[in-house]
Amino acid sequence: MDIEGFRKWGYKVIDFICSYHQSVGQRPVRSQVEPGYLAALLPSEAPERGEPFGDLLADVTTKIMPGLTHWQSPSFFAYYPVNYSFPSMLGEMLGAGLNVIGFSWISSPAVTELEQITLDWLGKLLGLPPSFLSATADGRPGKGGGVILSTASEAVLVCLLAARARAMAGRPVEDQLRLVAYTSDQGHSCIKKACMIAGVMHCRILPTTERDDFELLPAVLQAAIEEDLATGLIPCFYCANLGSTSSCAFDPIRKLFGVARAHNIWCHVDAAYAGSMAVCPELRAGFDGLELADSFNMNPTKSLLVNWECSALWVQDSWALKLALSLTPEYLRAKANALDYKDWQVPLGTRFRALKLWFVLRSYGAQGLQAYIRHHVGLARWFADRVLADARFELAAPPKFGLVSFRLKGATREKNMELLERLNASGKLFMVHTELAGQYTLRFALGSTDPDVSTPANCDLEVFETGALRRSRRLQQLRASCRKGSPLLPQTGTS
Amino acid sequence: MDIEGFRKWGYKVIDFICSYHQSVGQRPVRSQVEPGYLAALLPSEAPERGEPFGDLLADVTTKIMPGLTHWQSPSFFAYYPVNYSFPSMLGEMLGAGLNVIGFSWISSPAVTELEQITLDWLGKLLGLPPSFLSATADGRPGKGGGVILSTASEAVLVCLLAARARAMAGRPVEDQLRLVAYTSDQGHSCIKKACMIAGVMHCRILPTTERDDFELLPAVLQAAIEEDLATGLIPCFYCANLGSTSSCAFDPIRKLFGVARAHNIWCHVDAAYAGSMAVCPELRAGFDGLELADSFNMNPTKSLLVNWECSALWVQDSWALKLALSLTPEYLRAKANALDYKDWQVPLGTRFRALKLWFVLRSYGAQGLQAYIRHHVGLARWFADRVLADARFELAAPPKFGLVSFRLKGATREKNMELLERLNASGKLFMVHTELAGQYTLRFALGSTDPDVSTPANCDLEVFETGALRRSRRLQQLRASCRKGSPLLPQTGTS
Repeated sequence: MDIEGFRKWGYKVIDFICSYHQSVGQRPVRSQVEPGYLAALLPSEAPERGEPFGDLLADVTTKIMPGLTHWQSPSFFAYYPVNYSFPSMLGEMLGAGLNVIGFSWISSPAVTELEQITLDWLGKLLGLPPSFLSATADGRPGKGGGVILSTASEAVLVCLLAARARAMAGRPVEDQLRLVAYTSDQGHSCIKKACMIAGVMHCRILPTTERDDFELLPAVLQAAIEEDLATGLIPCFYCANLGSTSSCAFDPIRKLFGVARAHNIWCHVDAAYAGSMAVCPELRAGFDGLELADSFNMNPTKSLLVNWECSALWVQDSWALKLALSLTPEYLRAKANALDYKDWQVPLGTRFRALKLWFVLRSYGAQGLQAYIRHHVGLARWFADRVLADARFELAAPPKFGLVSFRLKGATREKNMELLERLNASGKLFMVHTELAGQYTLRFALGSTDPDVSTPANCDLEVFETGALRRSRRLQQLRASCRKGSPLLPQTGTS
Repeated sequence: MDIEGFRKWGYKVIDFICSYHQSVGQRPVRSQVEPGYLAALLPSEAPERGEPFGDLLADVTTKIMPGLTHWQSPSFFAYYPVNYSFPSMLGEMLGAGLNVIGFSWISSPAVTELEQITLDWLGKLLGLPPSFLSATADGRPGKGGGVILSTASEAVLVCLLAARARAMAGRPVEDQLRLVAYTSDQGHSCIKKACMIAGVMHCRILPTTERDDFELLPAVLQAAIEEDLATGLIPCFYCANLGSTSSCAFDPIRKLFGVARAHNIWCHVDAAYAGSMAVCPELRAGFDGLELADSFNMNPTKSLLVNWECSALWVQDSWALKLALSLTPEYLRAKANALDYKDWQVPLGTRFRALKLWFVLRSYGAQGLQAYIRHHVGLARWFADRVLADARFELAAPPKFGLVSFRLKGATREKNMELLERLNASGKLFMVHTELAGQYTLRFALGSTDPDVSTPANCDLEVFETGALRRSRRLQQLRASCRKGSPLLPQTGTS
């Protein structure tokens, strides 16, 4: 493939993506294949000679498509959403076309500097305390700043490592076995996994208030810390949930961090999903107390129109990250005394990952992103109202932002499981379940992107009765009324 | 931006990449900016309203380009190469357009299955022992298999974690502090970093034979293990170098792994750079003994035309990885009893990362990739011959594949440093240095991609005298003669 071949096929891939985007709503959301389906369709070895690109693209259509669960379908309500948008895709394309690598500053200065700048932009947009930004108000470098990591899993890991390094400074190595990390029973599995990776032996999963939004009470954390101190353990890390995976629970961080800081515990915020909501000032109530956090993490990929992968982490002081992760060998030593993101992360090198975030922030602007969030939050409220008004269902937790957790009222676990499997098997929508207070719960997570039109998602409750999805008149009414008021879906700048 | 806006700008970004590709050889290779250059050019906040996409693309040209170090320049000889190719870029584009996520099998079955299949293809192409493949010769699932990780850093980390889990099975937690990992003084810094992350306290860096290719002698490893056992430590992990970063040194793994396995030590191969060479049967001599390895890692991004990032790891038995990394919470539990790559890696989810590798393997075929490797190896040999023939220079280590390590003969460290800085500051090429046997050494790493024509790289020694790069007649002769014989640069299938 020469340069003109690339141009030709590049245009065709763009067209392919456009067609995919237009048809994704008609495809079965959850893939219907059985494990091992693909091996039966492909040869067992790479070809001896190159094949024409047209053959590859044809195989994508016939062999790959059936095996995809379509995260960009407007009827995808599983997990939390993963967004995409056209400007973000263009950022990915351009990044691939440049294929420059960042690890030290000199390996490609713009890769590092654009990341630092866009995370300052995003931090301001979220209303983060200024100490999380890399530049002070008068433009001088501060001690804090942001970095883009692969995922929230990597973010919690590097912060745990920083916490471990900070706690172990000056202590004998044996003390490492006595370190304790805390989170609540609503914390993401990646917290436990980070402890496994870091060899932090004690990962205490504290019980939440089942009747009150599944939040961790400060007294529970306080008691756990005291208990651990009494048995000679060393509390070093607490991960608060602002928007947990199961139910979008919010921990009252101002009080919790007060407790933790009194014991010199690193305070991390996992706001992977809900962090995006903070672009809207009226949705920031749960974020009060952030100035007490050591680190704050959210994924613009979940609700801010940025393609996977992009997880934003900010710290108030980067020295502990470097203490945990810096190690510069001779062949990487550069003259410039500049920011080296390799000291903030697990991998050495990364792609030009700020490009798509920059494109999204500039293409939609603050107002576009705010409108986008408000639109989804409005839809989720409407859906929750319908659940409340329907005698067959009950809410399993207070609806929060784009997430509604609910179940069949008075029905057995098996009945709820059957319902979910029937819906998912229909291919007409995809949701997953969770356990809340020991009960099987359906999670309806709104927020799939449909980047060019205001199709929000088909969230018609009737589907839960018949197993057959159809467009709801009420939903269409809601969408129509939504449209009237303000620009509900982000408009990029005209071009 | 609506769908037609995306089509329009998508085409323009393709054109932008084509122009970049055509002009990258004329740009200063190492960026000439000073730290902080970009903040002076950009606003300090995201815009309130969206901006036209044309403005963004214009800013990429005027503000981002000067801050790039151009890894795809034919005059980029720093670190090890990071390749790109047109089919690989198309794979990246398509992946962004689908934006599906893999973590469990059901989250998008094709994402998992294509990864497993392409790594079997690649494993066969590299001549790996069949036990590293996921499917046995008769198509049944085996215990081994491959996974695509972000980087070699992540690969060595997950293997260290697997080794730790295997060694600790049935032992008291206190024993964790007694674990030892081994590598040689030529090992990559990521090995030490993996130990820091995993809390493996003892990372022994063993001395190599300076006169003999910087390889680790089995007797040195044997003595270290015995010494550690005598003091009550627990040897658990050994990372061998097949193609070290400094000098592309190869450890004699058959004997070394024999020593390590006698003590139940996990044997990992870091072949991040040199692994690609194994596509050519005549270049496999150094890989003898792989059937004794527990894990094998190489980066198709370094010399097999795959865009960053893509690091391939194979294991002979995946149970220890799962022992170290699996942890399935309720909301991720799926019905299908299938491969979940989240249990093989640090992050939970990943993009559709096999797509570009699949596109590359199919577009070039085995023969295309072999021709590509042979071409670069031939050029490096020619360059090394020129160094040997020039009285001003000496080789610092035997040339290996695409790497030539050399220095000014009899000159001080400062003279060599001055030369390197003068060359890099010229913008006409970019190299980095390393330390070999305590001496400052210039590394000339060939292998940048120029995917549509057979421009190999400007490797004219004259530049080292004058600091001014010009096309060498001899180089052109070499290229001409190379062209005559066989298809030296990979041709994709005609389309």
